[in-house]
Amino acid sequence: MKICRYDEGKFGVVTPEGVVDVSSAFADLPRSSYPYPAHDVMIAGLAEIVTRIDISGKPVIPMDQVQLRLPLCNPGKLVAAPVNYARHLEEVRDQADLNHGNAAHMKQIREIGLFLKATSSLIGPDAPVVIGDGQRRNDHEIELAVVIGKTCKNVSSADALAHVAAYAIGLDMTVRGPEDRSFRKSLDSYSVIGPWLVTADEIPDPGALGFELTVNGVVRQKAHTRDLVLGVAELIEMASSWYTLHPGDILFTGTPEGVGEVKAGDTMVARMDGIGTMEVTVR
Amino acid sequence: MKICRYDEGKFGVVTPEGVVDVSSAFADLPRSSYPYPAHDVMIAGLAEIVTRIDISGKPVIPMDQVQLRLPLCNPGKLVAAPVNYARHLEEVRDQADLNHGNAAHMKQIREIGLFLKATSSLIGPDAPVVIGDGQRRNDHEIELAVVIGKTCKNVSSADALAHVAAYAIGLDMTVRGPEDRSFRKSLDSYSVIGPWLVTADEIPDPGALGFELTVNGVVRQKAHTRDLVLGVAELIEMASSWYTLHPGDILFTGTPEGVGEVKAGDTMVARMDGIGTMEVTVR
Repeated sequence: MKICRYDEGKFGVVTPEGVVDVSSAFADLPRSSYPYPAHDVMIAGLAEIVTRIDISGKPVIPMDQVQLRLPLCNPGKLVAAPVNYARHLEEVRDQADLNHGNAAHMKQIREIGLFLKATSSLIGPDAPVVIGDGQRRNDHEIELAVVIGKTCKNVSSADALAHVAAYAIGLDMTVRGPEDRSFRKSLDSYSVIGPWLVTADEIPDPGALGFELTVNGVVRQKAHTRDLVLGVAELIEMASSWYTLHPGDILFTGTPEGVGEVKAGDTMVARMDGIGTMEVTVR
Repeated sequence: MKICRYDEGKFGVVTPEGVVDVSSAFADLPRSSYPYPAHDVMIAGLAEIVTRIDISGKPVIPMDQVQLRLPLCNPGKLVAAPVNYARHLEEVRDQADLNHGNAAHMKQIREIGLFLKATSSLIGPDAPVVIGDGQRRNDHEIELAVVIGKTCKNVSSADALAHVAAYAIGLDMTVRGPEDRSFRKSLDSYSVIGPWLVTADEIPDPGALGFELTVNGVVRQKAHTRDLVLGVAELIEMASSWYTLHPGDILFTGTPEGVGEVKAGDTMVARMDGIGTMEVTVR
């Protein structure tokens, strides 16, 4: 099921014809006083909530009449993978020692580990990316984003996908420079998630998704998640071996080749199989 | 004023004689439904709340009869400075070109920038640090922790301290290794804040605090915040030039020399002028 937030925080199911208001299914999300839960309670309840959703016979709002919002609002942490696509994989494919090449890449990523992006950098498809430092190069990085659904620690890759609530498109915007990754990638608006959440049951194999990003209509990145060096399950295994993952934590799985600069006035269009298309402007 | 959370989430004022229950002053913190505020609403309201606190004549609970808890629960991000004390500053002091030496250090820190720690790593003084990887070296790093009180972006160092709500002692626990800082420093329980919050009015100069950390009674780190390369105001200026700081964001200001290993069974005692003393066990 494709779940969006739209307009004044309504919840909707996305269909080919448009959006169906299902806010009533989310009405029982708990109210809280301080301290609020440190995880995303909507995501924690999502698997149960979707079983109660029935859109048959309900009115459909055309897509161009809704304003899509950030689909989840209280992630505890944004975890991101460094370069996780073997560049020039075509070249490696032509060689006999494919496994050796891939093993070297895996070693490199495991050595670097994962990094964090600030949750304050998170925006939805309704907001523009605002260039934070116009003196530097600011790059687009399209990635498959994975939303954790269940608390997990030390989960094996074999069990990892059962802890995923949903998938979305992620844009891991980046200022180039010598600073720590978690600094350069955490400017306000530098983490985009959208256009909606696709519940995990709709994507049984997150390693089978083609995707692309255009800037002003020109294809910049075009790749496929089968070329991830560490797949979604392996990334969850690695992350959860270091710290606990909580419902709503978002995993940016890494970007393929084709990373390039964006400037104010540009329009990025990100498309991913099984998810959809999201247009994001740069200001 | 020294504000603690204790027992079942009560709020207290810490006095030399013990803790006074002031939970009623915090009773008006807003209840919320999803999405919850992305910042810490208790910290956002703290400056106003403390004006309503009057502990005269109220019963005092001896310190050894309360269980201190994490003093703030909903920080949006944990920002941390890399090495921010000039090592062997004594040596530099003996040289004529003190300013040159300090300028080089400042350049280095500005080049690395700040990094993030996962909010899921945060614990209070009531919880032990749990060694996450016993095969690696796990180090203590005592730091002055700064709690941001007001939303700020691009604040100058001259105005920065007006945006601080409170100070506390921070332990930035660290696994040594080649991985990204934001990974190695984000294991569950690897960010300790306590023993309570000291409101900013009590610490007019955060650059005038001596502090020390002992492990099993042996002094490991002993330093003074006057030796910070980038002071609290400069760190807030640098952080807010990259991203917006929100109420409850915590700034770990960096650790001085003397960093060393801890193992399960160790007891760390951290003491800082103007704040107090916090004992944390390692498991």
